[in-house]
Parts: sequence; C-alpha cells; structure tokens
Amino acid sequence: MGRCVVLLSGGVDSSTTLAIANSEGLELNALTIDYGQRHRVEIECARAIAKRFAVKRHLVISLDMGGIGGSALTTADIDVPKDRIEGGGGPLTSDIPVTYVPARNTIFLSLALAWAEVLEADTIFIGANAVDYSGYPDCRPEFIHAFEVMANLATKVSVQGTLRFKVRTPLIAMSKVEIIQTGLALGLDYSMTWSCYDPTPTGEPCLRCDSCIIREKALREKARREG
Amino acid sequence: MGRCVVLLSGGVDSSTTLAIANSEGLELNALTIDYGQRHRVEIECARAIAKRFAVKRHLVISLDMGGIGGSALTTADIDVPKDRIEGGGGPLTSDIPVTYVPARNTIFLSLALAWAEVLEADTIFIGANAVDYSGYPDCRPEFIHAFEVMANLATKVSVQGTLRFKVRTPLIAMSKVEIIQTGLALGLDYSMTWSCYDPTPTGEPCLRCDSCIIREKALREKARREG
Repeated sequence: MGRCVVLLSGGVDSSTTLAIANSEGLELNALTIDYGQRHRVEIECARAIAKRFAVKRHLVISLDMGGIGGSALTTADIDVPKDRIEGGGGPLTSDIPVTYVPARNTIFLSLALAWAEVLEADTIFIGANAVDYSGYPDCRPEFIHAFEVMANLATKVSVQGTLRFKVRTPLIAMSKVEIIQTGLALGLDYSMTWSCYDPTPTGEPCLRCDSCIIREKALREKARREG
Repeated sequence: MGRCVVLLSGGVDSSTTLAIANSEGLELNALTIDYGQRHRVEIECARAIAKRFAVKRHLVISLDMGGIGGSALTTADIDVPKDRIEGGGGPLTSDIPVTYVPARNTIFLSLALAWAEVLEADTIFIGANAVDYSGYPDCRPEFIHAFEVMANLATKVSVQGTLRFKVRTPLIAMSKVEIIQTGLALGLDYSMTWSCYDPTPTGEPCLRCDSCIIREKALREKARREG
C-alpha cells in the first residue's frame, strides 16, 4: 500500500485532491499549515475533511508568516480585493493578485517533503491548479517539476536511494467545474470545505473575494450544465 | 547597494556568512528560524550578532517542526549522539547523523525566498558547508543549484522578470579552520556564536556532540597553525 502526504488547507482544491488520493487506496497523511491566514476557519474544515476520509495522520503545523508580509492573506495592512470579476470563462486575471502569498507553495511543499521523508512516503499531493489560478507562479507545472528535481537532491532518503519523491498535482489542468464534479463523484461534500479569503466578523463567507467568486461561479456553472 | 537575506542561526557558519555579506557592502536582512530546536539559546546569539553587524532588519520566524519528528534536534525521543569522533581530518562521518533535520535547508531557504521576494532582495546567503557536513544532503552544491532553479520559477518577481534570485554559499568548500580564519579577519568574535546541539540544563555547551567537537577541533587546529 503506497503512502502519501496530502497538503490539505480545507478548501475546494485540496479537499478534492485528498478525495483523489483516497480513491487510489493510498495511506493518507494530511498536512495543514496554520500560517496566520485571515481565513483560519479553513483549518477547522481541514480537520473535519481529514476525519471524513479517515486519514492515518493529520498534522497541523504552526508557521508565523505575518512577519514576512507582502500578502493580503497574512497582513491586516493589505485589503483583500473584492468584486473583481464579471463573468467570462478564462482565468480571473492575468495579473498576480495581492492574495498571492510569497513562495507559499514552495514553503508548504518543503514542509510536506520533511514529513514525507520521516514517514517514508514517496508521494506528495498538492491541489495546485493552473487554470483558475494562472496568475500564481507556484501553481504551474514547470514549478512543480523543478521542486521535484530539487526535492530528490535535498533529502537523506533520496540521496541514499531508498525513496524517490513524486509531487502529484491531479487538478493542475482542470477547470473549477471539473474539480467539483470529480470531488462529488468521489463522495466529497463541498459544504464541508471553506473558500473565502476574508470571512465576515460573524464567520460567514464574504461572497465578494476572488476565492468566493470562483467557487460560486463553479457551483452555478455545474448546476447550469446539469440543467 | 545590493540587498540580501542571510539565514542566521547564530552558529559559526551562518555568522561567518553574515560577516562575508557585510564585507561586500550589501544591505543585510537576517532571517532566523525558531523551529523548536533543543539549542534555542542560539537564537539569542543570532540577535546579538545581527546587532553587531547592524543589519537593516532581523526577522525571527516561529515554525513548529516538533510534529514532523525524525531528528534529534527537534524531538526529545531521539538522543543527540556524543563522543563520535577521534581525530582525523576528514568529514565527521560518511553516514547522515540523527541530528540531520529532514529538509531543513529546503524549508529555511523557502522562507528566505518568501522574505527576499517581499523585500526585493535578489541574493540569499546560506552557510551551507559541504566539507565538515558532507553527510547532509542539503549542504551540497547540486542541491543549492536545484533550489535556485526552482526559486526562479516559484515567485511573482522572477516570473515577471523583475528579479532573478541567486543563492550564495561562500563557505561551501571551506574547512572549519578556514571558516573561522575568514570570520576573524572580518571582525567576527566567535565567543558570540553558539554551536552546541544539546546544551546542559544550566545552559553550557556539552562539548561532546558533533557540533561542539567540530568547533573545538577547529579552534585547536587554528591555534596550532598559529604556533
């Protein structure tokens, strides 16, 4: 039985990725990073989803990224943009939004690599998606490939030849609708997931940030296709 | 004036690296990671050394690596090995010791990359050394090169073409004696640095772990050469 580490934020993409890894019969080890994000409510969603898929282990690592700054998600000084989209089927924007967190996937994959080395898990899953998030440099296949090359030079197990790491991104070329269809087919209840970057003071999704807009648009589109 | 981020643990190697970056007239930004290491006393040394070199910024990031396990430095379950060396000029051991922290340099460089992106600093310094620590996979030039390639695919600034990251390892081919000679020539007072992996309950160096042994051997060797 193969063993994997799945980066699980509690959002649509990472939860779908966990469902896919589960469908392959792999031993699931879920890793969630509490990095001081505005939407820390997603961590509770991650816990519930990890339980739903009966993961073998769920590790939540605390990492204080606030001091690094540079992102609306980790600093109160930068507002989360609202109401940025008006229909259209393409990527949200060709610019990189202020919700980009510097080097986030690099950092998260590095932490997953460390845990994978200890667990002797040869596969790391990440819900990177190059379609709806085309503006994020660390969601592109060329980045993932370069990380994988680096990872196999970085660790004791890979240098000793006992383990060769693979980074898998099953969602990378899917649209958000395809992602949701895939997850539903695998038994994922999306009401358990969290997307909003900037919850209201009472803990509700704002419905106006990029992440809310992409999520709602996909749910509408899915409903429309199903007639 | 160039701007750099220097990974500064407070040990001999990273402190020497900071002294080298300082000698080049770069704007210094020091990054220290509090990762739950046994020898957290080194963080206070890092603060003092950052002050000594009048760094522009010193950021200490908390990262709880205890849950990952797999290293004597981050878990109480694994003892720090003692008294492992008996003279000899080569590397301490060809095996990778239990003080190896899984993917540590990958994680630290990723955090440095995030901060470098925010600061628009194009150079990251790390005190990796392939001579005395030949057993650590993430201290080898081929790893550093692969990280650099990955970093330039990972970030907004590199993808937009405004910044190209370099990872510099000025100590990589030096012996410990050469490192100390270099630092002394640049005004570094090594009594401000910390090496011991496993301080005594009263906060003194154990003088028996690999790191203490390498440090003391280098200091003796340096004294011998100077007659």
